[in-house]
Amino acid sequence: MSTLPQAPKLQSFLKESSQRVETRLHETLSEPGSDADKLFEAMHYAALGPGKRLRPALVYACAEIFHGVDFDAARCDSSAAAVECIHAYSLIHDDLPAMDDDDLRRGRPTCHIAFDEACAILAGDALQTQAFELLLTDSSEPCLKLQLLQELASASGGRGMVAGQAIDLDSVDKSLSLEQLETMHRLKTGALIRASARMGALLGGADSAQLEALTRYAEAIGLAFQVQDDILDITVDTAVLGKPQGADALLNKPTYVSLLGLDAAREKLRGLHSEALNALETLPGDTRLLKQLADYIVQRSH
Amino acid sequence: MSTLPQAPKLQSFLKESSQRVETRLHETLSEPGSDADKLFEAMHYAALGPGKRLRPALVYACAEIFHGVDFDAARCDSSAAAVECIHAYSLIHDDLPAMDDDDLRRGRPTCHIAFDEACAILAGDALQTQAFELLLTDSSEPCLKLQLLQELASASGGRGMVAGQAIDLDSVDKSLSLEQLETMHRLKTGALIRASARMGALLGGADSAQLEALTRYAEAIGLAFQVQDDILDITVDTAVLGKPQGADALLNKPTYVSLLGLDAAREKLRGLHSEALNALETLPGDTRLLKQLADYIVQRSH
Repeated sequence: MSTLPQAPKLQSFLKESSQRVETRLHETLSEPGSDADKLFEAMHYAALGPGKRLRPALVYACAEIFHGVDFDAARCDSSAAAVECIHAYSLIHDDLPAMDDDDLRRGRPTCHIAFDEACAILAGDALQTQAFELLLTDSSEPCLKLQLLQELASASGGRGMVAGQAIDLDSVDKSLSLEQLETMHRLKTGALIRASARMGALLGGADSAQLEALTRYAEAIGLAFQVQDDILDITVDTAVLGKPQGADALLNKPTYVSLLGLDAAREKLRGLHSEALNALETLPGDTRLLKQLADYIVQRSH
Repeated sequence: MSTLPQAPKLQSFLKESSQRVETRLHETLSEPGSDADKLFEAMHYAALGPGKRLRPALVYACAEIFHGVDFDAARCDSSAAAVECIHAYSLIHDDLPAMDDDDLRRGRPTCHIAFDEACAILAGDALQTQAFELLLTDSSEPCLKLQLLQELASASGGRGMVAGQAIDLDSVDKSLSLEQLETMHRLKTGALIRASARMGALLGGADSAQLEALTRYAEAIGLAFQVQDDILDITVDTAVLGKPQGADALLNKPTYVSLLGLDAAREKLRGLHSEALNALETLPGDTRLLKQLADYIVQRSH
């Protein structure tokens, strides 16, 4: 560790990884061969709108620690774009009138408002497929490619993200225990964040202990992200958040803040942050970027 | 060809392949590990309700011709279940209020009526993922598995089935040319039927000329299926069809019958039937089952 160059800068890393994944998304959504222009416009709108690109950043960051500056980030582009496609599809469908019925996302009209509801449903459907197609065009050797596909599929489906969304919808006007709330978040947002880290680790050539450590790291920051979301939901106003303040509270959805109170929710956030940093300790290489990413998640203001 | 045993019987083949795929679907949807019971109930309801199981039958039938009675049909179960999952997901989403707004499908309430709209959207989403998961658990060797995944993905997404559905929705109250109508159907229903045949062919070990012949066969029966659907839509009553008679005509959607008239639509159907049979002529093995399947598609009454 003594020979490390200067600490990586999170902001420039996030900017670079965003640019990489946006370039790949733009490429894949602009390939010819479609007869459905409006559908692809809606896919573009949803996948390439403003966003933190946190999941793609995790793919790159978790791969890079095994290689340092020599790592060829291009090897991660398809995986990074794939996790962003799944994320974008889930947001389109979550925002639909039959689901959370949100008109605003990141300060812009949601997909079904900017286009129409049918088009939004289909754009979400096609972005899910596009995620798998991206991995299939990846240049990784067949067994690695299948591992990446497996990670993405098990995180996304009825035993992953979609299950979380189903539990979330059923929780309106119900009281969940802290354990049930945690299960919901581990599925709804945690599973894809976990898969992003694991896909990066696999691309970087992690052994099983390293894969396990990055999994623990990702599980902790995934949950921390959600706790911070719940805190921001009641402490930050609409203009900063890009969505109505108190939206979850208004829907009478259980949150960490409603179950624990604001102070204990902040305590929970600190605990998860420590867990994430602990998980990094067994890893070789320069993990400072991953530490900064964990710091960013608990400190972010929107 | 002179030593062939008695002609395969289509009805018993369809029954057997339906049973195989239903068993595989039931298994995969019953595996433990989900915390979202209602979601899986809706997935079961949609994927295992009454249906022709035409796409799975094509997978089995196209694989079998290269092996005859010695073929181990179990090798096709995951692919057969995967194409049925994609088909079931597409029907759930097609039936939604924002899309075709159908309350009845195969004589039963559609998924969003039997459950609710949010649950139906998610069940469709999760069935799409389940299709890819099924192929990933397949026992085929890695390169074949990747080929199967590629066939499924390119047939399903924004350059396949979903594009077809998008064009279909945009066609309401518009006049399409025959060419545009054909493009729509080749994407909306044709692409998955084509992929089913190609996946069967790949599982059976087809060479590239054989794969090409089965592709031509599937393209012809896929379009024939749709022409027959349009004919049935105006000639058969609701009780037999399991959906309201004249539904497409009421929605003012262009059909083969509205564009060509009933007689010319029937002529078109006969032409496609011939094309399918011609494509089979270059194939080795016993293609009588595929011939019977083509006959069934143009003669079916619901």
